[in-house]
Amino acid sequence: MRSVSIIGVGCTKFGERWDVSLRDMIAEAGVMAIGDAEITGEQIDALFVGNMSGGRFIEQEHIGALIADCAGLSRLHVPSTRVEAACASGGLALRQAVLAVASGYNDIVIAAGVEKMTDVSSGTAADALAAAADREWECFFGATFPALYAMMAKLHMRRYGTTHDQMAQVAVKNHHHACFNPIAQYHMEVSIEDVNRSPLVADPLHVLDCSPISDGAAAVVLAPTEMARRFADTPIKIIGSGQASDTLALHDRRDLTTLDATVHAGRAAFAQAGIEPRQVDVAEVHDCFTIAEILAIEDLG
Amino acid sequence: MRSVSIIGVGCTKFGERWDVSLRDMIAEAGVMAIGDAEITGEQIDALFVGNMSGGRFIEQEHIGALIADCAGLSRLHVPSTRVEAACASGGLALRQAVLAVASGYNDIVIAAGVEKMTDVSSGTAADALAAAADREWECFFGATFPALYAMMAKLHMRRYGTTHDQMAQVAVKNHHHACFNPIAQYHMEVSIEDVNRSPLVADPLHVLDCSPISDGAAAVVLAPTEMARRFADTPIKIIGSGQASDTLALHDRRDLTTLDATVHAGRAAFAQAGIEPRQVDVAEVHDCFTIAEILAIEDLG
Repeated sequence: MRSVSIIGVGCTKFGERWDVSLRDMIAEAGVMAIGDAEITGEQIDALFVGNMSGGRFIEQEHIGALIADCAGLSRLHVPSTRVEAACASGGLALRQAVLAVASGYNDIVIAAGVEKMTDVSSGTAADALAAAADREWECFFGATFPALYAMMAKLHMRRYGTTHDQMAQVAVKNHHHACFNPIAQYHMEVSIEDVNRSPLVADPLHVLDCSPISDGAAAVVLAPTEMARRFADTPIKIIGSGQASDTLALHDRRDLTTLDATVHAGRAAFAQAGIEPRQVDVAEVHDCFTIAEILAIEDLG
Repeated sequence: MRSVSIIGVGCTKFGERWDVSLRDMIAEAGVMAIGDAEITGEQIDALFVGNMSGGRFIEQEHIGALIADCAGLSRLHVPSTRVEAACASGGLALRQAVLAVASGYNDIVIAAGVEKMTDVSSGTAADALAAAADREWECFFGATFPALYAMMAKLHMRRYGTTHDQMAQVAVKNHHHACFNPIAQYHMEVSIEDVNRSPLVADPLHVLDCSPISDGAAAVVLAPTEMARRFADTPIKIIGSGQASDTLALHDRRDLTTLDATVHAGRAAFAQAGIEPRQVDVAEVHDCFTIAEILAIEDLG
């Protein structure tokens, strides 16, 4: 299979972006990525879009076609595919794009992710997000996402002596980093005390343990590594990619303090890359809740 | 890239299946396909699921993880990806599976499609389906899918002298074929007069010009062609695949009597296969409305 590299990136500001629509945001990120790669629309062979919530947040499915259209690529009849895997939708769009290039089916491919979540009430948003959990066995009985992660956190605290202060440090660190990122949703330092004092959502998770509802989009342009230098001075080679599943319902999992999907996906990615966890300098992991970042770091070794 | 073949197929009965859930149906189709290929779950490398409507019809997203779970594949941590492209969702799941095998990332891959549409009222269903059209520019102004296809039919009739009797013949033929198919939703012969006498939905389309709301699932097992003979006596080699986009909103299209996405996808598939349209013996095309089948056959050459 062919090696794949990133030759351009684009990312919008994140936040409550009531002034722009889903299609505006993806166009903004896409134009940045295409500009960064210094390519034109005519050079794009395929588009993969990650989006979970279009159907329930803005009553729009068929997001692949929508994005091709608003990006001006539908006149070129560029194939466009939406993938959905809840919080992992954007990551899987990247993986599908990697497969498309690695297979030789396509050369220049865009992978993008977009969500428009802030145009509905918080109750509607919580219900829409609950569609990512097992509706029949969890949500219909009242379990929301904060409740599911709270159960994982409780068992982690009981088994390993993890404290809420330790979880709060994740929020402290991430909010500190956000202060240096002009496109972050919030620019404010928070302390452990701030997290502890913020309202309880699902014990032990406070508001500041939880990710906000947000609007935003990101896009990358991929090319075969052997072509990448034509477009970028410093292309980023993708040296490993892994994907794995686990039971949807928590009650069927082997263990609530380990995400086996993360463990197996990580192993696959490290194996393909031929490196070990200790060789990693920077990791960006999913932090929908503070306990989620702790679990991810543990599960990735 | 590697050549890809189908080594097993499975398909449920279609219809108003109020006795089974989405996960039941996909398990039924998947078990049939796996049995047909005479493989076990341990041999499956990846799963691709096409589903448009889970979020709005049964309030369930994250369909890839759900399917891996109910198929018993989540305990093996088999990666599972949902793709969504409205009516083309199942077809795109097959295409992603082909990319995964062709790329060398995976050997044995399942592609499946599933919809559970009959548990809601017809008004809710029509609104959910309208999420596949351009919500901002079409649906919010009252255009449903029958209305959009009715516009295409009207222009086709005006420009080419196409009659409603000619459209009705599509329904007559397809209902006739369904009588010999034990898993078809309806087993009834209809006449041109039956179609003409059935209630108007959106002039010129009558009820019998329109596809029904339905529940059902289908699955195929793919393998590299070089391995296919190990599993099947008569594997089906996939000799060409094409995908293309067009504007989502009808009002932006070059022409309302041609689906340019079909034209370009067809050309790509024929080019890869190295054959011409006249060499095709059997074609199964999308027939959401009778005019859709006519357009597809014309557009494919």
